[in-house]
Amino acid sequence: MKKGILSLNRQWGFYTDFYELTMAQGYYKFGMQHKRAVFDYYFRKMPCNVGYVVFAGLADFLDAVSGFIFTDEAIERLREEGFDKDFLSYLKNFKFQGDIYAPEEGEIVFNNEPLIVVKGNVLEAQLIETLLLNFINYQSLIATRASRITQVTGPDRVFSDFGFRRGHGLGAIQGSRAAAIGGAASTSNVMAAETYGLRLMGTMAHSWIQVFDDELLAFRHYAEVYPDKCVLLVDTYNTLESGIPNAIKVGKELATQGQRLKAIRIDSGDMAYLARRARKMLDDAGMQYVKILSSNQLDEFLIRSLNLQKAPIDGFGVGTQLITSYQCPALGGVYKLSEFDGHPRLKLSDDIIKISLPGDKWVWRFYDAQNRFYRDGIFLSEEPPASFSKVIHPTYKSMWTKVSKHHYERLQHHVMKKGEILDIERDPYMISRYRQQRLKQLPEETQRFENPHVYKIGLSEELWNLRDKLIKQHKRYETE
Amino acid sequence: MKKGILSLNRQWGFYTDFYELTMAQGYYKFGMQHKRAVFDYYFRKMPCNVGYVVFAGLADFLDAVSGFIFTDEAIERLREEGFDKDFLSYLKNFKFQGDIYAPEEGEIVFNNEPLIVVKGNVLEAQLIETLLLNFINYQSLIATRASRITQVTGPDRVFSDFGFRRGHGLGAIQGSRAAAIGGAASTSNVMAAETYGLRLMGTMAHSWIQVFDDELLAFRHYAEVYPDKCVLLVDTYNTLESGIPNAIKVGKELATQGQRLKAIRIDSGDMAYLARRARKMLDDAGMQYVKILSSNQLDEFLIRSLNLQKAPIDGFGVGTQLITSYQCPALGGVYKLSEFDGHPRLKLSDDIIKISLPGDKWVWRFYDAQNRFYRDGIFLSEEPPASFSKVIHPTYKSMWTKVSKHHYERLQHHVMKKGEILDIERDPYMISRYRQQRLKQLPEETQRFENPHVYKIGLSEELWNLRDKLIKQHKRYETE
Repeated sequence: MKKGILSLNRQWGFYTDFYELTMAQGYYKFGMQHKRAVFDYYFRKMPCNVGYVVFAGLADFLDAVSGFIFTDEAIERLREEGFDKDFLSYLKNFKFQGDIYAPEEGEIVFNNEPLIVVKGNVLEAQLIETLLLNFINYQSLIATRASRITQVTGPDRVFSDFGFRRGHGLGAIQGSRAAAIGGAASTSNVMAAETYGLRLMGTMAHSWIQVFDDELLAFRHYAEVYPDKCVLLVDTYNTLESGIPNAIKVGKELATQGQRLKAIRIDSGDMAYLARRARKMLDDAGMQYVKILSSNQLDEFLIRSLNLQKAPIDGFGVGTQLITSYQCPALGGVYKLSEFDGHPRLKLSDDIIKISLPGDKWVWRFYDAQNRFYRDGIFLSEEPPASFSKVIHPTYKSMWTKVSKHHYERLQHHVMKKGEILDIERDPYMISRYRQQRLKQLPEETQRFENPHVYKIGLSEELWNLRDKLIKQHKRYETE
Repeated sequence: MKKGILSLNRQWGFYTDFYELTMAQGYYKFGMQHKRAVFDYYFRKMPCNVGYVVFAGLADFLDAVSGFIFTDEAIERLREEGFDKDFLSYLKNFKFQGDIYAPEEGEIVFNNEPLIVVKGNVLEAQLIETLLLNFINYQSLIATRASRITQVTGPDRVFSDFGFRRGHGLGAIQGSRAAAIGGAASTSNVMAAETYGLRLMGTMAHSWIQVFDDELLAFRHYAEVYPDKCVLLVDTYNTLESGIPNAIKVGKELATQGQRLKAIRIDSGDMAYLARRARKMLDDAGMQYVKILSSNQLDEFLIRSLNLQKAPIDGFGVGTQLITSYQCPALGGVYKLSEFDGHPRLKLSDDIIKISLPGDKWVWRFYDAQNRFYRDGIFLSEEPPASFSKVIHPTYKSMWTKVSKHHYERLQHHVMKKGEILDIERDPYMISRYRQQRLKQLPEETQRFENPHVYKIGLSEELWNLRDKLIKQHKRYETE
């Protein structure tokens, strides 16, 4: 097994927003380090109006929580920032010893349902907020976009993550992991491959062609070094007049040695037009076996458009659009206190959708007779599953659905117990397999790119009433 | 001085795309490790149609180049990937020993001008490509967006980078550095502050309020712990009915102790409306000194809109929109071979703007009589500055500008000499000061947000003719 992102840094205590520390010192001053808190992670809106999100980033997050300690150097630095001696002694021995519950990585999830539930003393649960948000938001976003790409490449064609150069600095390493979870078959990112055990992919840049006196010589030399895995980049000078004819020449030369030119790669120009022309030229030369790869500002929409045009492309390199989720580069996940010292807590807002869900809760997933996802229901953890009868629309109480006859499962598993990581899947490709399997259970209309059918989430009656009661209490308070 | 991003990892050799390694092995097989190459870094389009870009990421990049080595473990891993023994022996002793020329960090730069020039043997210059692109693209993008935010906050109001939770994983650390270069006065990101010596900012989240039995108690407790730096978050339950009245109560209590409530922070709702109401309530209570901070999905456009509405906001927390450059989350910088073994090299394309500029070149900046930027001119390095007479439009040869009477400076400085970092500024705040000073020299119309006046770049006649000659050579070749 690979070491994971943790190897990059051993002082995760500083992987936090400053206010987590100022609040933690405050909690400490009021003796709250023994008070138990429950925090929920969820996101309010689907990014890019997608129909589903792929939950990702968990293994990295848990690894970093395990390493969330403060070195002597860090303590010294915080002393300079003005933190108190007593609090710093506490931090010096700090280690997260709480419990974390989360869906499996690769799970199909939705907005406004608590996904990760963190239970611990309020200090430890607060301190890991930024770490959780930073890791889970980004990886879930990229895994989601990658998964949509697999919807258009289909099972027979692969795509590779080529985003390293346009990724946000070091974040690209985590982005490549998320891309693999979302279905990327390989990556160009050597650091990510090494960190997470990903398959590597890459052959040549235009510079290889430019270094030699002409393109044919450059191709020949590459074929000489890599006769059994030769992929030639054909658009340096002129794809149709020079690149493809030269690739065919080299392909024929390889054939005389009992080798086969593996593929050509087109990196610019009109992909549908060039791929069709290339296919014909290759076929006419008897090279039906040579694949055509494409890699120029691709995303799920462009690939779908190429499909509609029946462009004969066998594989895709996807870069900028995937690694940055260009259309919607942030998933707005939040982390909200739902219970403190045994009492449910609420955050209010004029915007109903921004009111948090109070109490210690679980998400249960209900299935239909075909074993497809039917509803997700949010229940208080004290409610016995046997009692589940209906789920109510999150804001309109008179709309509800019967769930009593449906098979159901809890979405969250216990993934960290008293600070120790429990058995979780870490291999991005195994996680991707799980994602694929779950995607098959998601109604097709919800997988649609434009205006997907919104998957329904509901609350239990007890949770609905609890929230209502707390809202009324606060409203009374506010208008006093 | 801080350690910089380098401390995060000591094996930067793997911070590369796989094809850099497959090409490097190829170059090695053909004995090219002694052939000199020149590569240019530039971007073709302005991101978000901005008028200028702030060049950033250089110090981090140079640090990583210094640490671009292959550990024994890395060599072993590459052996498993199928790389040859001879090449791996070469990599084992690899260290970049070339020369790098670049603008100062914080420099105002434009599209289609070579910014970073890397000179070395073709292997070493090739291997650092991905590292350069990943570091410079992202930091330049974020520094640019931050700099635009300073255009609307003005010199009297500050803004803080609150983006950590929405940044792309570890990249947020580098993003916070870039935000400081672009003018952020402080950051919430503790890891970035520690890595780069940034000022920290942060007080409380909604959870602090929720933990206590009511809001007033929560405010009182916070004031007790931080009497001299008390900033209260007022939108947990109801900003106008509860948050601000409670903040005023606590402000009065602080005043009796000879302390002053520093500020309130509004994190949701209509900012212009709430800030105006808050200002009046605070002023009516005799608390003219309490500042109003705002932090909800802000960017330069929203802040400008708040300015137009004369919203009485004294400081801003900018998160998601800045750290991801939400509107345009990637700068499409590229790295192209311009000279090999003493011969100029070209990459062709049907799209004229995508044809690379051949040859070893410098960018010179020409100033007008008011010392404002007048033109940037790209000249072959062999051209003596005394000979500079005109610069020609990059694509239309009959359009040109006289520059002979203008004062000029070379944009690129020698920043790495035979693998050793030369004297560069590392402090993000000092770099930001340089940026500010340079921004004053940029014509105002080019600073405009919408349809900025395009700053003019030209080529020397020699460079124009060289490119033309090479295009013709290739065109002849292609149509044979």
